[in-house]
Amino acid sequence: MIIRTLTDARASDRNVSAPGWESARLLLKDDGMGFSFHITTIQAGAELPMHYKNHQESVYCISGEGSIEDLATGQVHDIRPGTMYALNLNDRHILRGRTEMVMACVFNPPVTGREVHDETGAYPADRAA
Amino acid sequence: MIIRTLTDARASDRNVSAPGWESARLLLKDDGMGFSFHITTIQAGAELPMHYKNHQESVYCISGEGSIEDLATGQVHDIRPGTMYALNLNDRHILRGRTEMVMACVFNPPVTGREVHDETGAYPADRAA
Repeated sequence: MIIRTLTDARASDRNVSAPGWESARLLLKDDGMGFSFHITTIQAGAELPMHYKNHQESVYCISGEGSIEDLATGQVHDIRPGTMYALNLNDRHILRGRTEMVMACVFNPPVTGREVHDETGAYPADRAA
Repeated sequence: MIIRTLTDARASDRNVSAPGWESARLLLKDDGMGFSFHITTIQAGAELPMHYKNHQESVYCISGEGSIEDLATGQVHDIRPGTMYALNLNDRHILRGRTEMVMACVFNPPVTGREVHDETGAYPADRAA
Protein backbone atom coordinates (compact mmCIF):
# COMPACT_ATOMS: atom_id res chain seq x y z
CA MET A 1 0.00 0.00 0.00
CA ILE A 2 1.28 3.40 -0.96
CA ILE A 3 0.19 6.46 1.04
CA ARG A 4 1.09 9.94 -0.19
CA THR A 5 -0.17 13.45 0.39
CA LEU A 6 -0.49 16.37 -1.95
CA THR A 7 1.40 18.58 0.50
CA ASP A 8 4.40 16.24 0.52
CA ALA A 9 4.32 15.74 -3.25
CA ARG A 10 4.25 19.49 -3.86
CA ALA A 11 7.36 19.90 -1.71
CA SER A 12 9.28 17.14 -3.54
CA ASP A 13 10.67 16.40 -6.97
CA ARG A 14 7.28 14.88 -7.79
CA ASN A 15 6.19 18.47 -8.47
CA VAL A 16 6.85 19.93 -11.90
CA SER A 17 5.82 23.27 -13.28
CA ALA A 18 5.89 25.29 -16.45
CA PRO A 19 4.27 28.58 -17.45
CA GLY A 20 0.55 28.40 -16.64
CA TRP A 21 0.49 25.17 -14.67
CA GLU A 22 2.08 22.96 -12.06
CA SER A 23 1.52 19.29 -11.41
CA ALA A 24 2.12 17.07 -8.39
CA ARG A 25 2.58 13.49 -9.55
CA LEU A 26 1.22 11.30 -6.77
CA LEU A 27 1.68 8.12 -8.79
CA LEU A 28 4.27 7.54 -11.51
CA LYS A 29 5.28 4.65 -13.71
CA ASP A 30 7.65 3.30 -11.05
CA ASP A 31 4.74 2.69 -8.70
CA GLY A 32 3.58 -0.14 -10.94
CA MET A 33 -0.10 0.80 -11.04
CA GLY A 34 -0.27 0.88 -14.85
CA PHE A 35 -1.34 4.55 -14.84
CA SER A 36 -0.06 7.76 -13.32
CA PHE A 37 -2.13 10.13 -11.18
CA HIS A 38 -1.47 13.84 -10.91
CA ILE A 39 -3.06 16.80 -9.17
CA THR A 40 -2.55 19.65 -11.61
CA THR A 41 -3.18 23.32 -10.97
CA ILE A 42 -3.95 25.53 -13.96
CA GLN A 43 -3.41 29.24 -13.39
CA ALA A 44 -6.17 31.77 -13.92
CA GLY A 45 -5.83 33.16 -17.42
CA ALA A 46 -3.68 30.30 -18.68
CA GLU A 47 -4.21 29.21 -22.28
CA LEU A 48 -2.50 25.88 -22.91
CA PRO A 49 -2.47 24.19 -26.33
CA MET A 50 -1.76 20.50 -25.78
CA HIS A 51 -1.56 17.32 -27.77
CA TYR A 52 -0.73 14.11 -25.94
CA LYS A 53 0.13 12.00 -28.94
CA ASN A 54 1.60 9.23 -26.81
CA HIS A 55 -0.80 9.13 -23.86
CA GLN A 56 -4.50 8.93 -23.13
CA GLU A 57 -5.51 11.30 -20.36
CA SER A 58 -8.60 11.91 -18.27
CA VAL A 59 -9.04 15.12 -16.30
CA TYR A 60 -11.57 15.74 -13.53
CA CYS A 61 -12.18 19.28 -12.29
CA ILE A 62 -12.07 19.48 -8.49
CA SER A 63 -12.29 23.28 -8.27
CA GLY A 64 -12.24 26.33 -10.49
CA GLU A 65 -13.70 27.14 -13.89
CA GLY A 66 -12.47 27.22 -17.44
CA SER A 67 -12.96 25.56 -20.79
CA ILE A 68 -11.52 23.05 -23.21
CA GLU A 69 -11.53 23.61 -26.96
CA ASP A 70 -11.51 20.52 -29.14
CA LEU A 71 -9.30 21.53 -32.05
CA ALA A 72 -10.71 18.76 -34.28
CA THR A 73 -14.24 20.20 -34.12
CA GLY A 74 -13.81 23.74 -32.80
CA GLN A 75 -16.26 22.94 -30.00
CA VAL A 76 -15.65 24.61 -26.64
CA HIS A 77 -16.83 22.81 -23.51
CA ASP A 78 -17.21 24.54 -20.15
CA ILE A 79 -15.27 23.09 -17.25
CA ARG A 80 -16.65 23.41 -13.72
CA PRO A 81 -16.26 21.35 -10.55
CA GLY A 82 -17.54 17.88 -11.45
CA THR A 83 -16.72 18.10 -15.17
CA MET A 84 -14.51 15.35 -16.60
CA TYR A 85 -12.93 15.24 -20.02
CA ALA A 86 -11.12 12.27 -21.51
CA LEU A 87 -8.75 12.51 -24.45
CA ASN A 88 -9.63 9.06 -25.76
CA LEU A 89 -8.54 9.96 -29.30
CA ASN A 90 -5.34 11.76 -28.25
CA ASP A 91 -7.35 14.89 -29.01
CA ARG A 92 -5.54 18.12 -29.78
CA HIS A 93 -6.99 20.77 -27.49
CA ILE A 94 -6.59 24.11 -25.79
CA LEU A 95 -7.23 24.28 -22.06
CA ARG A 96 -8.16 27.67 -20.65
CA GLY A 97 -8.46 28.67 -17.00
CA ARG A 98 -10.96 31.42 -16.26
CA THR A 99 -10.03 31.00 -12.62
CA GLU A 100 -7.35 28.82 -11.07
CA MET A 101 -8.42 25.21 -11.64
CA VAL A 102 -7.39 22.13 -9.66
CA MET A 103 -7.66 18.95 -11.71
CA ALA A 104 -7.21 15.23 -10.98
CA CYS A 105 -5.44 13.74 -14.02
CA VAL A 106 -4.85 10.12 -15.01
CA PHE A 107 -2.39 9.11 -17.74
CA ASN A 108 -2.17 5.80 -19.57
CA PRO A 109 0.55 4.77 -20.13
CA PRO A 110 1.89 6.26 -16.90
CA VAL A 111 4.35 9.11 -17.19
CA THR A 112 7.79 8.58 -15.74
CA GLY A 113 7.79 11.85 -13.82
CA ARG A 114 10.04 14.40 -15.39
CA GLU A 115 8.26 15.05 -18.67
CA VAL A 116 7.39 18.55 -19.73
CA HIS A 117 5.41 19.33 -22.86
CA ASP A 118 7.56 19.44 -25.96
CA GLU A 119 7.18 21.97 -28.74
CA THR A 120 4.15 20.11 -30.13
CA GLY A 121 2.31 20.09 -26.80
CA ALA A 122 3.02 16.39 -26.27
CA TYR A 123 4.81 14.43 -23.62
CA PRO A 124 7.51 12.30 -25.21
CA ALA A 125 6.85 8.57 -25.52
CA ASP A 126 8.47 6.47 -22.82
CA ARG A 127 11.17 4.68 -24.81
CA ALA A 128 11.70 2.22 -21.98
CA ALA A 129 8.05 1.10 -21.92
CA MET B 1 -13.03 13.58 -26.68
CA ILE B 2 -15.44 12.48 -24.00
CA ILE B 3 -17.08 15.12 -21.77
CA ARG B 4 -19.14 14.03 -18.78
CA THR B 5 -20.32 15.62 -15.56
CA LEU B 6 -20.72 14.20 -12.10
CA THR B 7 -24.30 15.50 -11.95
CA ASP B 8 -25.27 13.61 -15.11
CA ALA B 9 -23.43 10.45 -14.06
CA ARG B 10 -25.16 10.43 -10.67
CA ALA B 11 -28.55 10.59 -12.38
CA SER B 12 -27.75 7.70 -14.76
CA ASP B 13 -27.02 4.00 -14.63
CA ARG B 14 -23.34 4.97 -14.23
CA ASN B 15 -24.19 5.43 -10.54
CA VAL B 16 -24.11 2.39 -8.29
CA SER B 17 -24.59 2.19 -4.57
CA ALA B 18 -24.46 -0.24 -1.71
CA PRO B 19 -24.63 0.20 2.06
CA GLY B 20 -22.10 2.86 3.10
CA TRP B 21 -21.11 4.15 -0.33
CA GLU B 22 -22.13 5.19 -3.80
CA SER B 23 -20.00 5.58 -6.87
CA ALA B 24 -20.46 7.51 -10.11
CA ARG B 25 -18.41 5.86 -12.84
CA LEU B 26 -17.33 8.64 -15.17
CA LEU B 27 -15.15 6.31 -17.25
CA LEU B 28 -15.67 2.59 -17.73
CA LYS B 29 -13.99 -0.15 -19.71
CA ASP B 30 -16.08 0.63 -22.79
CA ASP B 31 -14.53 4.08 -23.02
CA GLY B 32 -11.25 2.49 -24.06
CA MET B 33 -8.98 4.50 -21.78
CA GLY B 34 -7.37 1.42 -20.19
CA PHE B 35 -8.56 2.46 -16.71
CA SER B 36 -11.85 3.44 -15.12
CA PHE B 37 -12.44 6.62 -13.14
CA HIS B 38 -15.05 6.95 -10.41
CA ILE B 39 -16.16 9.62 -7.97
CA THR B 40 -17.09 7.66 -4.88
CA THR B 41 -18.87 8.98 -1.81
CA ILE B 42 -18.29 7.17 1.48
CA GLN B 43 -20.92 7.80 4.12
CA ALA B 44 -20.04 9.16 7.56
CA GLY B 45 -19.64 6.23 9.92
CA ALA B 46 -19.17 3.67 7.14
CA GLU B 47 -16.75 0.82 7.81
CA LEU B 48 -15.96 -1.03 4.61
CA PRO B 49 -13.71 -4.12 4.47
CA MET B 50 -12.46 -4.48 0.91
CA HIS B 51 -10.11 -6.63 -1.06
CA TYR B 52 -9.73 -5.96 -4.75
CA LYS B 53 -8.03 -9.17 -5.73
CA ASN B 54 -8.48 -8.51 -9.43
CA HIS B 55 -7.82 -4.77 -9.67
CA GLN B 56 -5.27 -2.20 -8.65
CA GLU B 57 -6.91 0.95 -7.32
CA SER B 58 -5.78 4.42 -6.36
CA VAL B 59 -7.97 6.69 -4.26
CA TYR B 60 -7.54 10.44 -3.79
CA CYS B 61 -9.49 12.24 -1.07
CA ILE B 62 -11.20 15.38 -2.39
CA SER B 63 -13.18 16.14 0.77
CA GLY B 64 -13.97 14.63 4.15
CA GLU B 65 -11.97 12.67 6.71
CA GLY B 66 -11.50 9.06 7.62
CA SER B 67 -8.90 6.34 7.70
CA ILE B 68 -7.64 3.24 5.97
CA GLU B 69 -6.44 0.19 7.87
CA ASP B 70 -3.92 -2.02 6.11
CA LEU B 71 -4.91 -5.53 7.18
CA ALA B 72 -1.49 -6.96 6.29
CA THR B 73 0.28 -4.74 8.83
CA GLY B 74 -2.47 -3.43 11.12
CA GLN B 75 -1.35 0.13 10.34
CA VAL B 76 -4.04 2.79 10.23
CA HIS B 77 -3.46 5.81 8.01
CA ASP B 78 -5.45 9.03 8.32
CA ILE B 79 -7.27 10.23 5.23
CA ARG B 80 -7.84 13.95 4.71
CA PRO B 81 -8.28 16.13 1.63
CA GLY B 82 -5.09 15.65 -0.39
CA THR B 83 -4.34 12.13 0.87
CA MET B 84 -3.92 9.42 -1.76
CA TYR B 85 -3.66 5.69 -1.18
CA ALA B 86 -2.80 3.13 -3.82
CA LEU B 87 -3.51 -0.58 -3.44
CA ASN B 88 -0.48 -1.62 -5.47
CA LEU B 89 -0.35 -5.04 -3.81
CA ASN B 90 -4.12 -5.67 -4.00
CA ASP B 91 -3.99 -4.84 -0.30
CA ARG B 92 -6.77 -6.06 1.96
CA HIS B 93 -8.06 -3.05 3.88
CA ILE B 94 -10.83 -1.44 5.86
CA LEU B 95 -11.94 2.04 4.83
CA ARG B 96 -13.65 4.12 7.49
CA GLY B 97 -15.43 7.44 7.05
CA ARG B 98 -15.36 9.76 10.05
CA THR B 99 -17.28 12.24 7.95
CA GLU B 100 -18.69 11.83 4.48
CA MET B 101 -15.74 11.48 2.12
CA VAL B 102 -15.63 12.20 -1.62
CA MET B 103 -12.90 10.25 -3.39
CA ALA B 104 -11.52 10.15 -6.93
CA CYS B 105 -10.81 6.48 -7.71
CA VAL B 106 -8.90 4.89 -10.59
CA PHE B 107 -9.08 1.17 -11.38
CA ASN B 108 -6.73 -0.87 -13.53
CA PRO B 109 -7.97 -2.93 -15.27
CA PRO B 110 -11.06 -0.79 -15.78
CA VAL B 111 -14.30 -2.00 -14.29
CA THR B 112 -17.16 -2.72 -16.66
CA GLY B 113 -19.70 -0.71 -14.70
CA ARG B 114 -22.10 -2.92 -12.84
CA GLU B 115 -19.80 -4.61 -10.35
CA VAL B 116 -20.65 -4.61 -6.68
CA HIS B 117 -18.34 -6.05 -4.04
CA ASP B 118 -18.74 -9.78 -3.62
CA GLU B 119 -18.68 -11.59 -0.30
CA THR B 120 -14.88 -11.33 -0.12
CA GLY B 121 -14.85 -7.55 -0.67
CA ALA B 122 -13.59 -7.96 -4.25
CA TYR B 123 -14.95 -6.96 -7.59
CA PRO B 124 -15.15 -10.01 -9.84
CA ALA B 125 -12.53 -10.35 -12.57
CA ASP B 126 -13.67 -9.21 -15.99
CA ARG B 127 -13.89 -12.55 -17.80
CA ALA B 128 -14.09 -10.79 -21.16
CA ALA B 129 -10.82 -8.94 -20.63
